[in-house]
Amino acid sequence: MAPKLEDVAKLAQVSKTTVSRVLNNRGYLSQQTIDKVYAAIKALDYHPNVVARQLYKNKTNLIGILLPTVANPFFGELTAALEMKLYQQGFKVLIGNSMNDVAKETEYLNQLLTKQVDGLVVGTHNQGIKQYEHRDLPIVAIDRIMNQDIPIIESDNYRGGVVATTRLLDQGAQHVIHINGPKALATPTKRRRDAYETVMQDHGLTPLTYEVDFNMPEERKKALFRQIFSDHPEVDGIFASNDTDAALIMQLAHELGRRIPDDLLLIGYDGTKTARELLPSLTTIVQPIDELATTAIQVLNDRMQGVPTKQEYILPIKLWQGDTA
Amino acid sequence: MAPKLEDVAKLAQVSKTTVSRVLNNRGYLSQQTIDKVYAAIKALDYHPNVVARQLYKNKTNLIGILLPTVANPFFGELTAALEMKLYQQGFKVLIGNSMNDVAKETEYLNQLLTKQVDGLVVGTHNQGIKQYEHRDLPIVAIDRIMNQDIPIIESDNYRGGVVATTRLLDQGAQHVIHINGPKALATPTKRRRDAYETVMQDHGLTPLTYEVDFNMPEERKKALFRQIFSDHPEVDGIFASNDTDAALIMQLAHELGRRIPDDLLLIGYDGTKTARELLPSLTTIVQPIDELATTAIQVLNDRMQGVPTKQEYILPIKLWQGDTA
Repeated sequence: MAPKLEDVAKLAQVSKTTVSRVLNNRGYLSQQTIDKVYAAIKALDYHPNVVARQLYKNKTNLIGILLPTVANPFFGELTAALEMKLYQQGFKVLIGNSMNDVAKETEYLNQLLTKQVDGLVVGTHNQGIKQYEHRDLPIVAIDRIMNQDIPIIESDNYRGGVVATTRLLDQGAQHVIHINGPKALATPTKRRRDAYETVMQDHGLTPLTYEVDFNMPEERKKALFRQIFSDHPEVDGIFASNDTDAALIMQLAHELGRRIPDDLLLIGYDGTKTARELLPSLTTIVQPIDELATTAIQVLNDRMQGVPTKQEYILPIKLWQGDTA
Repeated sequence: MAPKLEDVAKLAQVSKTTVSRVLNNRGYLSQQTIDKVYAAIKALDYHPNVVARQLYKNKTNLIGILLPTVANPFFGELTAALEMKLYQQGFKVLIGNSMNDVAKETEYLNQLLTKQVDGLVVGTHNQGIKQYEHRDLPIVAIDRIMNQDIPIIESDNYRGGVVATTRLLDQGAQHVIHINGPKALATPTKRRRDAYETVMQDHGLTPLTYEVDFNMPEERKKALFRQIFSDHPEVDGIFASNDTDAALIMQLAHELGRRIPDDLLLIGYDGTKTARELLPSLTTIVQPIDELATTAIQVLNDRMQGVPTKQEYILPIKLWQGDTA
């Protein structure tokens, strides 16, 4: 028969509460007591995870990750980093590609509320889901503003906007256009737009931002980008919302006979390992994916343990110097 | 009311044990018996998963996906497709990025053996894990040869090798070099090499294959590719093992002053959506990611329900015509 907590207490000649405190590292404990308890645990080949299960009956050691889709290299690399780090802490990872699917996102939240997972990392675009209104949920958001209660982990979008716009202007662009997501979307990536518009105005230039939905099919996106060139033939610099869009613009520029960087300067965003390997010539702003993952897990651990956290964590970006700007 | 195992037995005029043996492909069975049982199953519209649920009460509705890393666009897109389809069937997905980590892979297998997940999709590079030797496990492999008992889902690697090599030769290349993984690795991707070597020999040309490990750091890979150009300055065509390697070769060719496609023809492999968006100019062989996911799930469902499966499922590839070959 498997040894019990009380067997450990008996052998160590301490109370059950003391064994529990040693196992959970709680309250004042002398080194002598700690040593006695661990000696008894070892002698009995007692597995404390049994206790953990008794104490926290609903602990699953599962963390849910809800992102638009791991098919996107930014979210794929982020998920890989989160999973590798969570695994080292004894967690397994459930993923949900929640792209535009409010019902699916709600289901994962209900899983959390019914304690089928211990915590959630969310970076989805779906808004107005009622379940997020519960207070103190073990949730962290990446790049999304959920509500006042859920901490956000993000890279320095404002700084990214400043670095990108300044680089385009420093290299001689005068008619810089920016592409960003819909203004209605609650995401800190809008700060790139604020930065771009501020830098342009500071240089006495008129900012012009096109709003493009992340989920728009490629063909429609391409038509919209084509429209930019026909509406604004004077454009000589583009600050794109991500590297895939930037690649599409490169292709289009090629079709329209505009040489990059001679006729058009171009900067992408995200700077994933994949994009830097496949398209190293693209100048882009690199998000710190590994640090985003590390911070998200630290903050999630704090939330799971009821430790107060900050409301926002902003991590530094870097510039990848390619040949396009 | 849903038909039961005994209804099938009655209609087929066999014992319940025989029906169970047919469903689980166990013991000696005549073809006549198998045919009778399946005719009764069809006539009654009997769904063996009901039995499966009765037999194995520990159903978790969790499927584990063990791939090297979702940070790689092929595995990221494959995982997204698997998760979207499994979710529609009521399953949630646990992921493990098992890159070179035998202990981690073993842990997931133990989860399966202790019924913490209902099934596993594996596409890992780790070899010789003892737990795979259990028979009839609800496991499918993608692009990996595990053992005689585990079905493999793969794209037509031989055909991919033929299409790539033929295209390079048809466009005038004479000195074509192929890059593939280590020969010792048990994966059907080696058939690309067989195809390449056969096509070369059929044209009276000498094949030359370089073996490069998928996990090799980028800097070492680049040094090795540089070696190819210095060892074989006559090279005028390269059939790479994946699109990331092809991108690295493009970059290197640019540095060495070799124009693509004028001085060097180049074909990649995988043709993920990400690669085709970021680098549409690269000619490549497109693996059918969505069909691989659909087939893997069908076969896994069969395995989970004890329905016999084929040992191998080969799906067609396509050519993406870029400008590099």
